[in-house]
Amino acid sequence: MLNLASTTDPAWVETALSDLDELLLDHAHCERKAAGMALRLMFRYPDRAFLHDPLSRLAREELAHYEEVLRALAARGGSMRRQRPSPYAGRLYHCVRSAEPERLVDTLLVCALIEARSCERFKLLAESVGDPKLSALYNGLLASEARHHGSYLDLAIQASDEGTARARLLELAELEAEIIADPTPMVRMHA
Amino acid sequence: MLNLASTTDPAWVETALSDLDELLLDHAHCERKAAGMALRLMFRYPDRAFLHDPLSRLAREELAHYEEVLRALAARGGSMRRQRPSPYAGRLYHCVRSAEPERLVDTLLVCALIEARSCERFKLLAESVGDPKLSALYNGLLASEARHHGSYLDLAIQASDEGTARARLLELAELEAEIIADPTPMVRMHA
Repeated sequence: MLNLASTTDPAWVETALSDLDELLLDHAHCERKAAGMALRLMFRYPDRAFLHDPLSRLAREELAHYEEVLRALAARGGSMRRQRPSPYAGRLYHCVRSAEPERLVDTLLVCALIEARSCERFKLLAESVGDPKLSALYNGLLASEARHHGSYLDLAIQASDEGTARARLLELAELEAEIIADPTPMVRMHA
Repeated sequence: MLNLASTTDPAWVETALSDLDELLLDHAHCERKAAGMALRLMFRYPDRAFLHDPLSRLAREELAHYEEVLRALAARGGSMRRQRPSPYAGRLYHCVRSAEPERLVDTLLVCALIEARSCERFKLLAESVGDPKLSALYNGLLASEARHHGSYLDLAIQASDEGTARARLLELAELEAEIIADPTPMVRMHA
């Protein structure tokens, strides 16, 4: 259902749980960047009317999650601050083809895969984190991330066609699996 | 309460009502740009923690309004498309000082003034537009715009202090009044 080409190495969970404050801060950045990407697409494609309402709703949900993660950070005595991002999203966006309409389709599919990977990892975190409040947070986000995966895939299909979008999704999922398998010595959602 | 240095020329209302489709399309762009600016500030100032929760909530409201205006556009047979913006916001942001923290304070105050001018004009539109659905839309947005004006002013005060922020608001309000008085031969919210 999530269209991922690999499952997360259990070693990631162990690293992630070793520094929950760092993980939560990265998670906040991820939610904000997810909202930012939805808005960027709205600005980049003013004439692709089918994108606007779904992306606006999606951005609102990401922002609501952002506020939720900020509250979880605050409850642990933390707050928003600058943090070096993991190279994951940058490397994935690097796979986007530059000509249109491929650029739009690929960007939507990359967003779909990021949502899918987040969903898969929130499930792992919800099952293994000791703190019941954090477990509830991750469990609460799971369903939205799966839904966002589906929304981005639907938009990619609308921007091309079912066959084209699904074939490219398979290719990008392989690339995503390679990128996520490349270990980063950082505590990050997508390390 | 809105801290504007001028009231809108009644001739603007007449021009605005002469092409409601063009006005609504510009309005949609304005709501999207307002959300975009709130997000841009969140990205530009990751370490100014006090900005993040209020700007995220504000961006969500702007996006909800964006969706509302898209529905109003669709009800009239229109949809989102590219449109030449009025020079108003660009000219106002041009008044922002480049050194920090002045840049942040000025940007927040310019946002406060744009919200104030929108609020003033929504009231005029609500009173004069013939279509009861559009009148309800404008009336519904009025209160949020006034609240957003207050939020941006509060943030500018937090980014400096009450005296500094209010003194600069008076200066920028004078500049805003000059810019909005300069007629543009376009049907726009801020022409």
